[in-house]
Amino acid sequence: MSKVAIIMGSISDMPVMQDAIDILKQFNIEVEVDIVSAHRTPEKLFDFSKNAHIRGISVIIAGAGGAAHLPGMVASMSPLPVIGVPVKSSNSIDGWDSVLSILQMPGGVPVATVALNGAKNAGILAAQIIGSHDKKVLDTIIAYKEELKAAVNKAAEGLNR
Amino acid sequence: MSKVAIIMGSISDMPVMQDAIDILKQFNIEVEVDIVSAHRTPEKLFDFSKNAHIRGISVIIAGAGGAAHLPGMVASMSPLPVIGVPVKSSNSIDGWDSVLSILQMPGGVPVATVALNGAKNAGILAAQIIGSHDKKVLDTIIAYKEELKAAVNKAAEGLNR
Amino acid sequence: MSKVAIIMGSISDMPVMQDAIDILKQFNIEVEVDIVSAHRTPEKLFDFSKNAHIRGISVIIAGAGGAAHLPGMVASMSPLPVIGVPVKSSNSIDGWDSVLSILQMPGGVPVATVALNGAKNAGILAAQIIGSHDKKVLDTIIAYKEELKAAVNKAAEGLNR
Amino acid sequence: MSKVAIIMGSISDMPVMQDAIDILKQFNIEVEVDIVSAHRTPEKLFDFSKNAHIRGISVIIAGAGGAAHLPGMVASMSPLPVIGVPVKSSNSIDGWDSVLSILQMPGGVPVATVALNGAKNAGILAAQIIGSHDKKVLDTIIAYKEELKAAVNKAAEGLNR
Amino acid sequence: MSKVAIIMGSISDMPVMQDAIDILKQFNIEVEVDIVSAHRTPEKLFDFSKNAHIRGISVIIAGAGGAAHLPGMVASMSPLPVIGVPVKSSNSIDGWDSVLSILQMPGGVPVATVALNGAKNAGILAAQIIGSHDKKVLDTIIAYKEELKAAVNKAAEGLNR
Amino acid sequence: MSKVAIIMGSISDMPVMQDAIDILKQFNIEVEVDIVSAHRTPEKLFDFSKNAHIRGISVIIAGAGGAAHLPGMVASMSPLPVIGVPVKSSNSIDGWDSVLSILQMPGGVPVATVALNGAKNAGILAAQIIGSHDKKVLDTIIAYKEELKAAVNKAAEGLNR
Amino acid sequence: MSKVAIIMGSISDMPVMQDAIDILKQFNIEVEVDIVSAHRTPEKLFDFSKNAHIRGISVIIAGAGGAAHLPGMVASMSPLPVIGVPVKSSNSIDGWDSVLSILQMPGGVPVATVALNGAKNAGILAAQIIGSHDKKVLDTIIAYKEELKAAVNKAAEGLNR
Amino acid sequence: MSKVAIIMGSISDMPVMQDAIDILKQFNIEVEVDIVSAHRTPEKLFDFSKNAHIRGISVIIAGAGGAAHLPGMVASMSPLPVIGVPVKSSNSIDGWDSVLSILQMPGGVPVATVALNGAKNAGILAAQIIGSHDKKVLDTIIAYKEELKAAVNKAAEGLNR
Repeated sequence: MSKVAIIMGSISDMPVMQDAIDILKQFNIEVEVDIVSAHRTPEKLFDFSKNAHIRGISVIIAGAGGAAHLPGMVASMSPLPVIGVPVKSSNSIDGWDSVLSILQMPGGVPVATVALNGAKNAGILAAQIIGSHDKKVLDTIIAYKEELKAAVNKAAEGLNR
Repeated sequence: MSKVAIIMGSISDMPVMQDAIDILKQFNIEVEVDIVSAHRTPEKLFDFSKNAHIRGISVIIAGAGGAAHLPGMVASMSPLPVIGVPVKSSNSIDGWDSVLSILQMPGGVPVATVALNGAKNAGILAAQIIGSHDKKVLDTIIAYKEELKAAVNKAAEGLNR
Repeated sequence: MSKVAIIMGSISDMPVMQDAIDILKQFNIEVEVDIVSAHRTPEKLFDFSKNAHIRGISVIIAGAGGAAHLPGMVASMSPLPVIGVPVKSSNSIDGWDSVLSILQMPGGVPVATVALNGAKNAGILAAQIIGSHDKKVLDTIIAYKEELKAAVNKAAEGLNR
Repeated sequence: MSKVAIIMGSISDMPVMQDAIDILKQFNIEVEVDIVSAHRTPEKLFDFSKNAHIRGISVIIAGAGGAAHLPGMVASMSPLPVIGVPVKSSNSIDGWDSVLSILQMPGGVPVATVALNGAKNAGILAAQIIGSHDKKVLDTIIAYKEELKAAVNKAAEGLNR
Repeated sequence: MSKVAIIMGSISDMPVMQDAIDILKQFNIEVEVDIVSAHRTPEKLFDFSKNAHIRGISVIIAGAGGAAHLPGMVASMSPLPVIGVPVKSSNSIDGWDSVLSILQMPGGVPVATVALNGAKNAGILAAQIIGSHDKKVLDTIIAYKEELKAAVNKAAEGLNR
Repeated sequence: MSKVAIIMGSISDMPVMQDAIDILKQFNIEVEVDIVSAHRTPEKLFDFSKNAHIRGISVIIAGAGGAAHLPGMVASMSPLPVIGVPVKSSNSIDGWDSVLSILQMPGGVPVATVALNGAKNAGILAAQIIGSHDKKVLDTIIAYKEELKAAVNKAAEGLNR
Repeated sequence: MSKVAIIMGSISDMPVMQDAIDILKQFNIEVEVDIVSAHRTPEKLFDFSKNAHIRGISVIIAGAGGAAHLPGMVASMSPLPVIGVPVKSSNSIDGWDSVLSILQMPGGVPVATVALNGAKNAGILAAQIIGSHDKKVLDTIIAYKEELKAAVNKAAEGLNR
Repeated sequence: MSKVAIIMGSISDMPVMQDAIDILKQFNIEVEVDIVSAHRTPEKLFDFSKNAHIRGISVIIAGAGGAAHLPGMVASMSPLPVIGVPVKSSNSIDGWDSVLSILQMPGGVPVATVALNGAKNAGILAAQIIGSHDKKVLDTIIAYKEELKAAVNKAAEGLNR
């Protein structure tokens, strides 16, 4: 079964990254969670990145703030799809630093970037990647989209009552 | 075999989007290419998005510029992973409009955004998504990373000669 | 009689969009209000956009935040004037995403964009559009401008007393 | 018959504003064109703004660059809908000054802002405003949207041949 | 004796603009204060701007927020030096709109722009303009600069005690 | 007679700053021109700033690019009004650095900032400052504004012929 | 023994700059602290800058906000390495002014800029500069990096327990 | 003798980085130059970073563009001072991505950032770091500053002749 690794640069990113864990659990997809700091634990970064696909991980979600190098550095060493979550950390310049240092990767090394603090969407995207070859997960995604629709329709009904 | 659909909002996006076609062909991954404009062909957008996964597409790459709604609208209707390429079009405000209208999707509907004009990386990311469950494609990615490394090393050698 | 449709992408946009409802009611212009999410209820988006002018709507006001696709997608399918309200939602990057993804529409498909969170102005603009061919509404606008002037003059008097 | 006034702050805005003239002529809508500078001809600005609706104008399109005050000042004095075109002039800071000084109008005085250099869309929006109460013009808009669609489809066909 | 007029677009700008009043009073320079809204009281704007130099005003300070047209419109009609204060109003996009719509005036019509919310500096600048030809006021400025220096030195001493 | 000093941080700023010289000569106001680099000739900066008002200068215009410290440093030492011209130099980040490092001066030390590359307006503003107490120069400004108006009217006539 | 001077433009910068003092004390590096305002105490700025290297200072850390000229002006007069700390002061435009007026120094006069409010990193950088020729301090830095790593690992363990 | 290592992420950065080589050679400081890509040669990045201080390097200059991770990743593993040069590469968003991903490093891991494309200043800063403990190099810096001054004075003389 496919497994998603969720890593983050600092324990302070956890309140944001929890959304990725929650939605993947809701989708019954196995996750592992760890803290891997590009700047403070570079050896762990190397070990993690070089071995994730060997250890049976299918997709990596990496969240970081400020000059956020974690997603890009993992992507430089892992052949797996890496989803980057820009985290709006305390001394960030309105989140622009996180967004640009994850998004603007050079040709050859992509990071699948989601919205600022968009950990929930990172989880859904990971599920969609698994669903692209796993009919059961694909059906879960299709069902999830129906739930989104139903919630909007219910809110709209409340409006017009 | 997995197949990637590459769509763009306008024929004027082709010079940028060609990079995605080229790298996927280099990886021996089947592609189909089409123009689907969110704003000018909304019915085609609906048909494409609702049926791509039924027609055997695994991953969708969508490129657009300015107020770029194509990737997000496809993502709203398809359960497949959608990769968005912000294109720096002629009247764009330095590309910020394309980047933000693709990246900042609301919770529930992710778009895997790559760098401005980063169609090559969109192609590689699509291959990585396929490679996450297809050992042969994964090996292609690993080999590709070795080529990137070799090219840098060769340039470095030239420097010190 | 002319009627204005006010739609928004999420119930969370209501505190901002209420200003449009209030000012139009103050102008005695009929409104209908609904939630139509481009990303979560795409079919409703299609139905709404394709039929609004047939159902007797004259002007559409659409509010949305983040990667705000609702106003532009309605404009792609409706021949009516569409007024877009960029909403500064919680994870927005200071509102820039909402503003740019509504304002920077491609040639052929305009959205009449108002200021960030400017729902009140959206309502006034809708009234002005109706007033451009309805003498009674035009007179209401002229009277409204006199009220604005009187309020400033009263505040100025208070200052110099 | 409805008539659209197209004004601009400087003759140097004409290459951009010509697009509005052209599309309105294509739609068979009568236009008048003038240069009205908020900063250099303030009396003309007053005369124009206060009398446009009396002279039989239905919609005003105003284009200006830099600290662009023309659209907002016209809107302060005319009860008609005013469409603002931010022009990217030579010493503009990438167009941000034009966009923000037209878009961010205070509550009470809306300007219907279109994209940077988006004069064509200003023309289409003016037509849509007229079409909101003139069935013949509405049909022209509907036909125009079909042409846009046909052009995309033709380009797409060329791609796949 | 020279007199400074301090005007603002809205009573809500008063908390910011009070700093200009206070510093000018501290410098014993006569001030008059009024609310003049470019968008809501255009006739008052005209009267004020055309007559200020005839009424014996030497310098005009104008504060406004958002799409701030007041300073520039006064400058278009008055031959006096106009100092513009960009006010960070509630729905401003981080103050950028106020700054750019005051600063980026076209060639021919300058506005002497100070920092965001910099009303105190506007007052000092008005005093410096008067001081450029009034020895007594110049000496007040020189003395004021000595006070600034003394305050820093005192704080520095406290640090090292 | 009043005299204006025009200084700039580098000879490369001259093409921009020439506009200030030209307009002041056209107004028959005496100018002196010099290069004073805050970063390369700090002693000259001190001498200039401390003595300008003693030497009979009435107004100082200072132009600089990038991290532009010249206008602010002159203002810190001279009691005269200092007009700052942000120059868009070659390695500037689109001019934002020049604008912000001149505009955003702390309380107590104003710089009268004009538009990016706005040396012409700096010259006019210097003339207006002199004109605030010199009737002859004031009349020159009034006449200049009439010329601006005439030029617009002539262009407008050309349009409608 | 090497000594680091820490200066700041205002006592209000102290809460941010304290981090530099603390980390250098933790590294047993001697510091001196002073307030030197480029705009309010220019003579002190000159004295400090011209004499720091004569007085036995090895590295200078300078923090300032808004149009932050202190670090650059010190660098213009001292041959020592100057580290600039952009401080996000109260009326700053989101910190962009501080960052750009410190970072974008012209060719010839570098300032070693750290992150917004990054005084702690300024202290570490000062220590690294000393450590580049002082084996004992270098070892302190190496040990500090091990502590950073240990803290991350401990947090990661807590996560997986 | 002290030695400076100059590395860059790509051979395409060489035209910018050459300025650092040139100025250091002019100062008679030994340099070594190499290409080390954080994203394409991560193992080389590790080897370089962990061993530079052992191999006798005193200061590291690292230049990179886009999502520029090289300077920060070297700083994460080397105890030496690392100077980062943001390079404005071809698909950069006006250089903002390079600047922010180098400047905004998290607490604990500083990068001494210089201006966009500021490789010359990076070289001078490296010399100043060496000069902070090497009297001969310090004198070279002092002499260099005199040359800068002389060049400005010469240009100023040319102006007034």
